[in-house]
Amino acid sequence: MGTTKLRTKLLGIESGGKPVITLSREDAEELGVRSGERARLYHDSKEMTAIVNIMRSVPKGTVGIYDEIVRIWRVLEHQVIEVESTSFPESLYLIQNKLKRMKLNYEEILIIIKDVVDGNLRESEIAAFVTALDQQGLDLDEATSLTVAMVETGKSLRLSDKGPICDKHSIGGVPGDKTTLLIVPIIAAAGLTIPKTSSRAITSAGGTADRAEILMPVNLDIKEMKRVVSKTKGCIVWGGSLDLAPADDVFVQIEYPLSIDPLLLPSIMAKKKAVGANYLALDIPAGRGTKVKTIGDAHLLAKDFMELGKRLGIKTQCLISFGEQPVGHTIGPALEAQEALKVLNGQAIVPDLIDKAIHLCGLLFSMTGKGNGERLAMSILKSGKAEKKMREIIASQGGDPNVKPGDVEIGSQKLDIESENSGTVLWIDNQRLMQIARAAGAPKDRKAGVVIHKKIGQRVKKGESIITVFSERASKLGSAERIMNEYSPLRVGDRREMIIHKVVEIPEPKKAFILER
Amino acid sequence: MGTTKLRTKLLGIESGGKPVITLSREDAEELGVRSGERARLYHDSKEMTAIVNIMRSVPKGTVGIYDEIVRIWRVLEHQVIEVESTSFPESLYLIQNKLKRMKLNYEEILIIIKDVVDGNLRESEIAAFVTALDQQGLDLDEATSLTVAMVETGKSLRLSDKGPICDKHSIGGVPGDKTTLLIVPIIAAAGLTIPKTSSRAITSAGGTADRAEILMPVNLDIKEMKRVVSKTKGCIVWGGSLDLAPADDVFVQIEYPLSIDPLLLPSIMAKKKAVGANYLALDIPAGRGTKVKTIGDAHLLAKDFMELGKRLGIKTQCLISFGEQPVGHTIGPALEAQEALKVLNGQAIVPDLIDKAIHLCGLLFSMTGKGNGERLAMSILKSGKAEKKMREIIASQGGDPNVKPGDVEIGSQKLDIESENSGTVLWIDNQRLMQIARAAGAPKDRKAGVVIHKKIGQRVKKGESIITVFSERASKLGSAERIMNEYSPLRVGDRREMIIHKVVEIPEPKKAFILER
Repeated sequence: MGTTKLRTKLLGIESGGKPVITLSREDAEELGVRSGERARLYHDSKEMTAIVNIMRSVPKGTVGIYDEIVRIWRVLEHQVIEVESTSFPESLYLIQNKLKRMKLNYEEILIIIKDVVDGNLRESEIAAFVTALDQQGLDLDEATSLTVAMVETGKSLRLSDKGPICDKHSIGGVPGDKTTLLIVPIIAAAGLTIPKTSSRAITSAGGTADRAEILMPVNLDIKEMKRVVSKTKGCIVWGGSLDLAPADDVFVQIEYPLSIDPLLLPSIMAKKKAVGANYLALDIPAGRGTKVKTIGDAHLLAKDFMELGKRLGIKTQCLISFGEQPVGHTIGPALEAQEALKVLNGQAIVPDLIDKAIHLCGLLFSMTGKGNGERLAMSILKSGKAEKKMREIIASQGGDPNVKPGDVEIGSQKLDIESENSGTVLWIDNQRLMQIARAAGAPKDRKAGVVIHKKIGQRVKKGESIITVFSERASKLGSAERIMNEYSPLRVGDRREMIIHKVVEIPEPKKAFILER
Repeated sequence: MGTTKLRTKLLGIESGGKPVITLSREDAEELGVRSGERARLYHDSKEMTAIVNIMRSVPKGTVGIYDEIVRIWRVLEHQVIEVESTSFPESLYLIQNKLKRMKLNYEEILIIIKDVVDGNLRESEIAAFVTALDQQGLDLDEATSLTVAMVETGKSLRLSDKGPICDKHSIGGVPGDKTTLLIVPIIAAAGLTIPKTSSRAITSAGGTADRAEILMPVNLDIKEMKRVVSKTKGCIVWGGSLDLAPADDVFVQIEYPLSIDPLLLPSIMAKKKAVGANYLALDIPAGRGTKVKTIGDAHLLAKDFMELGKRLGIKTQCLISFGEQPVGHTIGPALEAQEALKVLNGQAIVPDLIDKAIHLCGLLFSMTGKGNGERLAMSILKSGKAEKKMREIIASQGGDPNVKPGDVEIGSQKLDIESENSGTVLWIDNQRLMQIARAAGAPKDRKAGVVIHKKIGQRVKKGESIITVFSERASKLGSAERIMNEYSPLRVGDRREMIIHKVVEIPEPKKAFILER
């Protein structure tokens, strides 16, 4: 353990969020610090911890400073900083204990989560932690501790309203799921509070925040969110800018390429806890092409969510739904917002979408003591009260309350796919549809997407239009068409084919992963 | 997946070994690439893969280039580079499979190890891989594949000599282990080849390369090593500069702070395979304060090494040795080199050091058909043939062949510790001794270290000197003294104390970790 005084050299670039310094090999050896280890910095009676990089390009006697530290400390070129080698942070020893399969208590988990948020742990150390959680599985105590620690280290919505606070969530993985755009106004129209935060698409063709943004601004801060909810009882805002569980953002960056999601339950529940929810209706889509492949797994997951909810004071009920085809007929932000608006104003009846929305509302109404929940939900939708409430929310968030489905602009480039034969729709490939929608430009191009005219079980005549792809650009429509031509995302026939795949040589590793919370 | 042309902005610093570029948020979004994902770079009909950082400080239209890429491509400021987003590398999908507990075959492991060496994987992805190996345990097939893949991606020593090639290794963890300085000359003096590579200290007070460097240069390259071995049959060189298993260097950087070592067997055996060894004597020190705590675990580890050796064509035998006190009387590079030299020239008899060396040589002699190996080893040591051979090796590596123990300089600052009572030495605390030696300056200050005058079982009189600390600087001697005064690393008494610890509140996480290969 040593200490030395070095002169700053401003590098003029960022280190990726964490405080990092670079040292020459000589100075690092003198200090007894290795690459990736931590050092304590002192300057002007301030101090902080930074991770050390050792680089040939840094001259002896200088400390390379990235923009993060410049922003925090406002240091200038050639100023003197005292650098002290420090031992590993306590959180790292706790991660070591987790690797040894020891159970961590709440205080220990809080120390880790704090260091994750503060940037005191290396990417590899956080990766080891999430990998160990993935490999060992979380027990309910640890899941509870992780949830509470994530809430503790983030911001919270504190509503003055003391009545029940409802929330809704879908595990995701099914394209076209615009259910939230119906549920929030139905629940709020019944006088219940529902401060809904949603995500943007990561790997899919659209998240609920992307859909809602077609109708109104969604990048609200906590204060604006509180104002909207106080006024209308509901909201649909993007959770990403609210900082409700900042640790989760760090974890997701690491989990995504690894295709693991051990913190699924804590990360979802932390965001519910942070908005003060005490009633949660959770949608678990099950089946091929979704996150949860079997109904058995869906039940086990439901049980875990309900148990965790109980410990957190969030009464939770789950709906296991059929996930092997898109919800409704549309995929892509503008198309989906338009479809939801048509259902709200009675212009369209989309049975599976309405079914899902009504049943999830029903769970919330029953939990909060509103009797026959589904009937109530349906009457609010049919009476136009839901539409009226949605327009209030749109206005309150800064959108046009008089928006009509016809006002929503859809991509001008269009491709119709006709059925090559007559028969029944036997299956639909979610992943394939998502790929086509993304190739067409969604979710970045808001007006791009896919319309599926026929769903599983419906009769189709030869030459009838089954799918329409919309895009903002001809080149992207071309990309979508090429994917479509490889093989169809929808099967029309008279009987289910027997053969799935022949495996005649060692297969390539599988490459699809859904990460949407 | 997109492609765009950007102008280079040379950042003038390194990214830590891997090819990394930085993009503006706008360009990254346009390309459809997220932070940490990979991009393919094209310039002047050359191409490479780099990891993408997204930074606010990079202007749109430019690509920030670190020194690594500048070195490889010799690009200048404001040149045009084509950047293309790419999907994840195949190695990442294979790591995902390992996380799903699938067994990887040799071809798959080779793909991962190649990408580790080439810098195509993020630190977090490599961390997830080693964590999964740690959590799941390696089976022997995977250990074999990992070993061969590590050899395949590194350099090898190819000796023209077709006779048996011997090697020796200690799992480590015991301070003062200068056994290699005796074994190499004994084996080589018997006419057997022993191309020994050794490590420097990471967390200890001295590695074998640090000890040997007191007597001769050890930073040889493969060509020089080959010359020395061809001439003298043996060598003692630092393995770190030979690039025998470069993947291991990457793994160690990640494993060290996590205190895990799942690649222990492959990383050791890869370096033996790379020098062409076909006979290996392995020392497994067991007991408190070593890496392997119990004799049972030592046997299990021995079995794994022998099985792995069989698959690799390296006949392996193991010695389980008592590791609860230092080997010989000295700790610290110069002190240890001096002690080894004294044993070689007959000036000192150090029974435990000689015992260990003779028995390990005995294993090698017996395996290679030299009959009663231990007797042969002892006769080579006693006859002075080992000393003569050592001087040949020293000369061949560029040291002074006439060096005498008295020529080895020891730190001038000295502190004698006397026993406060009479009795028998009951135990010695390895970790504590190592800490004292490090506080005194070892291994960086070569002349610093500790001499232990009495070992376990020896009688001590009150006031007799039990430990002497040497240092190059008075201030460091002071630090060592403070640690010594906290509690003694050596217990003199008449009976073993009954009480180890009282645990009256939840204990702090333990903080010691040995990482020496």
